[in-house]
Amino acid sequence: MMRDDTTTDPAVGEFMGGLLSGVSSEAARRLIVAAVEAFAERGYYATTTRDISAAAGMSPAAMYIHYSSKEAILFAATRIAHDAAQATITRPVLPTESIEERVRAIVRDFTRWHADGAPLARVAQYQREALSVEHQAVIAAIRRRTETLMRTEIEAGVRAGVFHPRDVGSAARAILSMGIDVVRWFRPGGRMGAAELADQYAELALRMLGVPPSTDAPA
Amino acid sequence: MMRDDTTTDPAVGEFMGGLLSGVSSEAARRLIVAAVEAFAERGYYATTTRDISAAAGMSPAAMYIHYSSKEAILFAATRIAHDAAQATITRPVLPTESIEERVRAIVRDFTRWHADGAPLARVAQYQREALSVEHQAVIAAIRRRTETLMRTEIEAGVRAGVFHPRDVGSAARAILSMGIDVVRWFRPGGRMGAAELADQYAELALRMLGVPPSTDAPA
Repeated sequence: MMRDDTTTDPAVGEFMGGLLSGVSSEAARRLIVAAVEAFAERGYYATTTRDISAAAGMSPAAMYIHYSSKEAILFAATRIAHDAAQATITRPVLPTESIEERVRAIVRDFTRWHADGAPLARVAQYQREALSVEHQAVIAAIRRRTETLMRTEIEAGVRAGVFHPRDVGSAARAILSMGIDVVRWFRPGGRMGAAELADQYAELALRMLGVPPSTDAPA
Repeated sequence: MMRDDTTTDPAVGEFMGGLLSGVSSEAARRLIVAAVEAFAERGYYATTTRDISAAAGMSPAAMYIHYSSKEAILFAATRIAHDAAQATITRPVLPTESIEERVRAIVRDFTRWHADGAPLARVAQYQREALSVEHQAVIAAIRRRTETLMRTEIEAGVRAGVFHPRDVGSAARAILSMGIDVVRWFRPGGRMGAAELADQYAELALRMLGVPPSTDAPA
């Protein structure tokens, strides 16, 4: 079944466009977008490879050129999402930026990514148990590295005498958790936009780390 | 098909036992436990009513005496979980308890509930979109009330001059979010137990609200 039009959500496609530049072909990118939309709507198990290929405007046989299974597409999407979320934490070192400013920017970017990134981020978070054991291990390694990166930033602030967490691991976990949970409830058009939410959460994260309230609060 | 044994997980059943006292019959309780286990493992859409009735040791026909559909069981489980989570925030007023101690206890209980309560809490959080529009509205109302309760506690602390959040709504959301996200990653036997996690998160919540670090940190 070949179709000229696709049923993919333009918003999902637009957001994912930037993330998918490393994917080998336009057809593979289209399959990922279609799969994420279907998984987000119906869940992984209720989605068939036929649903995905049809939504991407190609035949099931054409799909298998790019991905050997439904699980392979889920893995590709999950890995892209986890790499992109982690990239918000691997901020380049700016000589003029204090550790407080740096962590504020990191939490802001991480939160913002999860607000803008749903439903991709939601699929990546909630369908992980559908991955093969090997693929779960790959994702778990990215997640451990993300937590390590956050802990490393907090430890730098502790060494600088700026952060005073009671427990570095719990603080790192809570800050990431707060940002990740955005994928569960955030919807565009709500009381607070993604940018303001990210700004508020960055302030809350610094408070968790024992930094006094910001005096230059945005309007 | 009647069976003497069931395939339900004893741990799920044990935790849920206390929550299900309001459910009309032992058979209905068994169906909820079986459904939660199946939804947690395979997702809602891939679970059939036959799977649920078989795991509860009864026939599909017998199941329909208690619940008219798979969605009706999901709704029952989701409502029980949301009511129980909310109950941790409707703490009785203790004359000897400061607002700081009160909010610390609330965040501790709320976090602890989500750590102990997975996989029920996980199903309640992640399968909500499978509910009918009417049932989603019932759950959304409980959630709005939970947020209102948390905001009310924070506002009481602001009036008392103890809490200094930049934005009450964001702080309430972040504190609940941090606790709810526990259902995504917490597994018993990890680095930190439920009780210690709950204690750490309560401290982090008070810091978000502008309370100076606790000096009587537990060992």
